[in-house]
Amino acid sequence: MSAQPVRLSTAQPDFEARFKALQHWSADTDAGIEQRVADILADVKQRGDAAVLDYTARFDGLQATSVAQLELSQADFKAAFDGLPAEQREALQSAAQRVRSYHEAQKKACGESWQYRDADGTLLGQKVTPLDRVGIYVPGGKAAYPSSLIMNAVPAHVAGVGEIIMVVPTPVRGSVATGGSGGATATRGERNELVLAAAYVAGVTRAFTIGGAQAVAALAYGTQTVPAVDKITGPGNAYVASAKRRVFGTVGIDMIAGPSEILVLADGSTPPDWVAMDLFSQAEHDELAQSILLCPDAAYLDAVQREITRLLPTMPRAAIIEKSLNDRGALILTRSMEEACDISNRIAPEHLEVSSRDPHRWEPLLKHAGAIFLGAFTSESLGDYCAGPNHVLPTSGTARFSSPLGVYDFQKRSSLIEVSEAGAQVLGRTASVLAHGEGLTAHARAAEMRLT
Amino acid sequence: MSAQPVRLSTAQPDFEARFKALQHWSADTDAGIEQRVADILADVKQRGDAAVLDYTARFDGLQATSVAQLELSQADFKAAFDGLPAEQREALQSAAQRVRSYHEAQKKACGESWQYRDADGTLLGQKVTPLDRVGIYVPGGKAAYPSSLIMNAVPAHVAGVGEIIMVVPTPVRGSVATGGSGGATATRGERNELVLAAAYVAGVTRAFTIGGAQAVAALAYGTQTVPAVDKITGPGNAYVASAKRRVFGTVGIDMIAGPSEILVLADGSTPPDWVAMDLFSQAEHDELAQSILLCPDAAYLDAVQREITRLLPTMPRAAIIEKSLNDRGALILTRSMEEACDISNRIAPEHLEVSSRDPHRWEPLLKHAGAIFLGAFTSESLGDYCAGPNHVLPTSGTARFSSPLGVYDFQKRSSLIEVSEAGAQVLGRTASVLAHGEGLTAHARAAEMRLT
Repeated sequence: MSAQPVRLSTAQPDFEARFKALQHWSADTDAGIEQRVADILADVKQRGDAAVLDYTARFDGLQATSVAQLELSQADFKAAFDGLPAEQREALQSAAQRVRSYHEAQKKACGESWQYRDADGTLLGQKVTPLDRVGIYVPGGKAAYPSSLIMNAVPAHVAGVGEIIMVVPTPVRGSVATGGSGGATATRGERNELVLAAAYVAGVTRAFTIGGAQAVAALAYGTQTVPAVDKITGPGNAYVASAKRRVFGTVGIDMIAGPSEILVLADGSTPPDWVAMDLFSQAEHDELAQSILLCPDAAYLDAVQREITRLLPTMPRAAIIEKSLNDRGALILTRSMEEACDISNRIAPEHLEVSSRDPHRWEPLLKHAGAIFLGAFTSESLGDYCAGPNHVLPTSGTARFSSPLGVYDFQKRSSLIEVSEAGAQVLGRTASVLAHGEGLTAHARAAEMRLT
Repeated sequence: MSAQPVRLSTAQPDFEARFKALQHWSADTDAGIEQRVADILADVKQRGDAAVLDYTARFDGLQATSVAQLELSQADFKAAFDGLPAEQREALQSAAQRVRSYHEAQKKACGESWQYRDADGTLLGQKVTPLDRVGIYVPGGKAAYPSSLIMNAVPAHVAGVGEIIMVVPTPVRGSVATGGSGGATATRGERNELVLAAAYVAGVTRAFTIGGAQAVAALAYGTQTVPAVDKITGPGNAYVASAKRRVFGTVGIDMIAGPSEILVLADGSTPPDWVAMDLFSQAEHDELAQSILLCPDAAYLDAVQREITRLLPTMPRAAIIEKSLNDRGALILTRSMEEACDISNRIAPEHLEVSSRDPHRWEPLLKHAGAIFLGAFTSESLGDYCAGPNHVLPTSGTARFSSPLGVYDFQKRSSLIEVSEAGAQVLGRTASVLAHGEGLTAHARAAEMRLT
């Protein structure tokens, strides 16, 4: 077992080519999945509950005679919460509270209505309102993270969303579809008690134990039992991602996430085992996850490599970490911290740790990143769970043009315009000239009629 | 020639069914277009400039030996502006100035960075930064609207975007591809002088006379001559819409717009010919455009119908208006203004006129709309051109979950977190418990290492 992220130096003549190869990642779409998802969506749109029941039996081995049998209750959430050890109950509540505080500050900073009147008395502004109803997809099985549910549900709550509908598949363990009937009550699938407890803490309105493209379809189109929502957020597998892309337009969706990445900019002042563990905490997610360290001090890169080698065998997910670091990791020697910042801007990483004694010196140079973690004490994992900011962040360089999930994703804006009679005299002349210039006579005349 | 929008009443027993039929609109995708667009994107990604030149010759009849020949200069913009009548120059400048003022207010209200420190001295916040470079697609020919360019470029400018790259096809009039060579200089295609003048007023950085899927590909991937952008906005035909959907993820995109719609809520106090002309100004865009009037006063609906009949023959685009109103228009009698507001919320219209003596009584009841025009003097056309708010608005009911184009579409946010040593002691314990609960040991240990 040995993890040796590739060592690069910006002084190497072939650095640019090797750097580009490192960044390469492509989300190939699978035509087979695309077609199956299209069929499932059309079927659920057409047959509603009956189709949802069929796919849930087929894919999750979960038999039910009505979708109502697949609904979880608030009592289920509370029972799951009450059944947890005190330590986990407190951790969930404390994380949710910090996430809530942060998103309340975010709402105050950028989520309120505004308006003003110009000199002619014309009112201009924007009204900010919450979405009526949103759906949150929670993956089943291993990747069911209660923290993800908190990160999706809490900003929706803070935005003022009326109803939050959760879907989470609960496949029957070891089951494959056998065609058997479930009788009057549903077979009980494998539930994740931490997820149900998180639903209690985060304030989920309703929840259904369905998943896959059929759950996305049910939320987008509505069925006899599952209410149609206005937006669907939350991570999922290739079927879920494809379904979300396809229902976009009927409902809103959040980003389709790629593999997770961390970039650490280090000036050599942080204990190297801390940095090694931060790289691991990205790598342990997934073999495709990417961990990159940039530092102007070659001896420090050596020290971090030594810690990687020492610590790796102690990790339960060592095999995943090893493959991720060997295939996609890198330790890059830069000429300076300034150059490290430039490279970071080219990568636009999802997570960016500035592991420096003087992080505020470098932060202004950093233009593109999902989240910026400043200083040695700010491990990414603190941000992942409980610092407050959202852990749903733009991946694969999309931080160049997109933002963390936030309260603003659960609000929408309506422009407000009230033109005064005096304003109509000025604006009407301008609009008339431009509308005639575009050949839109009715536009021009509607403006001209208001001239007194 | 006669335009008779369907007359409905909410008291009719079959109102629900007829109302649903009225709302129906579906954007069918064309498999042939999808495949051709996929091929064009792959070709431009692979061959760059050479592919762009081939498609521009083939589709626009515009021959050039280099993409540089297809670039417009700032001098071209200025010459177009200087060549306009004074009235048009002033109208363009005045519109751009008002749009700029509004978007500056928007940036101040919701586009600034913020941060705070909690009791443990941990810093939390968000840094708001502009996109580096955006592309604006401007359709060629009839649908080339200078106002659209202003509405796309000005918010980008106000956001602080470094470079704004415009693409606008300039097809050679009557030309189809003949295989002939353009020689040393490009054939001159059909330019829209108002669009070039708007580029001058709005502050476009660079512009290329290319269009279609090949222009979207050039902006998304970059070529030897066209710089790659971070986001592409602006309307286009089915090829452009398909190309934008496909490059989403590599770059950001704005919404894919459906047909335009107006909903007028009237209490009967506005002159009926004003309202008739407002309905026309939507209908003249496009036969698929939708104009709906809701009013609790049947006599007023009669009066508006009389004005429609009287005014229609005087309109240059009467044929389009007639078809739009007959196929998709409606005059709906409601029981009350309150009920009209409810119906409006179900439609979530792009444009919503509250043509009432007391618009502020109804505005709080209106939850979903792209833009709300209050009072009789606020014709939609004033908002379309120069009131200040953006005219790029969510269509087809997507106002349930999306917003007008704005400064926020040209900015992105990065979370900022700096955990203090004291903060790490508290947060580390919470993160450790949750990370162990999710089976992510490296996450837990990274937090635990910061416990002192």
